Amino acid sequence: MKWSMSQINKGSIDEKFSLIHEHWRPKVVAQLNGQELKLIKFAGVFPWHHHEHEDELFLVWRGEMRIEFRDQSVRLRSGEFCVVPRGVEHRTMADVEAEVLVFEPAQTRNTGNVVDKVFTAPNGVPL
Amino acid sequence: MKWSMSQINKGSIDEKFSLIHEHWRPKVVAQLNGQELKLIKFAGVFPWHHHEHEDELFLVWRGEMRIEFRDQSVRLRSGEFCVVPRGVEHRTMADVEAEVLVFEPAQTRNTGNVVDKVFTAPNGVPL
Repeated sequence: MKWSMSQINKGSIDEKFSLIHEHWRPKVVAQLNGQELKLIKFAGVFPWHHHEHEDELFLVWRGEMRIEFRDQSVRLRSGEFCVVPRGVEHRTMADVEAEVLVFEPAQTRNTGNVVDKVFTAPNGVPL
Repeated sequence: MKWSMSQINKGSIDEKFSLIHEHWRPKVVAQLNGQELKLIKFAGVFPWHHHEHEDELFLVWRGEMRIEFRDQSVRLRSGEFCVVPRGVEHRTMADVEAEVLVFEPAQTRNTGNVVDKVFTAPNGVPL
């Protein structure tokens, strides 16, 4: 079987982020093993939620964000990462626009157990 | 259920890389959904191999690397990424030491279908 360049899926994180002009709308840049690498621009405060069956990895590419839990808050600066285990209620926020990589199972809903008119985003949207 | 900071698993990619003093030895810095985020310092040429059941995501954190396939070569600079689909023979290399994030299923053997005295590394080694 012969693979072409398009199947090999090379990309630049910076270039991909430069194409994103919305906040809180995950864009899928890679799919593998039933998981997706998503790029998200954070700004402001996201709703409280949890994911019943999915752990989430956040890795800050540029800027700074916080993840609030009910009993603590984690500040993530550029180059810092954090795993939010399934079932754990949390909300994310950024005072100034931040660029964040998220790795999680394909089709994970961004607002988890919550449906929010403003924040719930379509799933599996490629960049 | 109450989660403590240690369970939340915050980390800095740069700090983690500063603790790695071997080439080609994957160190696991996060586990989620049966997958692992591994940090690897590349230098030199890795053996040809493929992974029967695992796709692999490479994201260059610092430096530059190449992934050679039998019919093409992909050069990845800092901030560039590439998915190597399961079953596709490849080898990785770096002329100068490069720091690379790898995301793949837990317990993926680094040399895939090959067992190499020098390059096959223990699996699931945390940092």
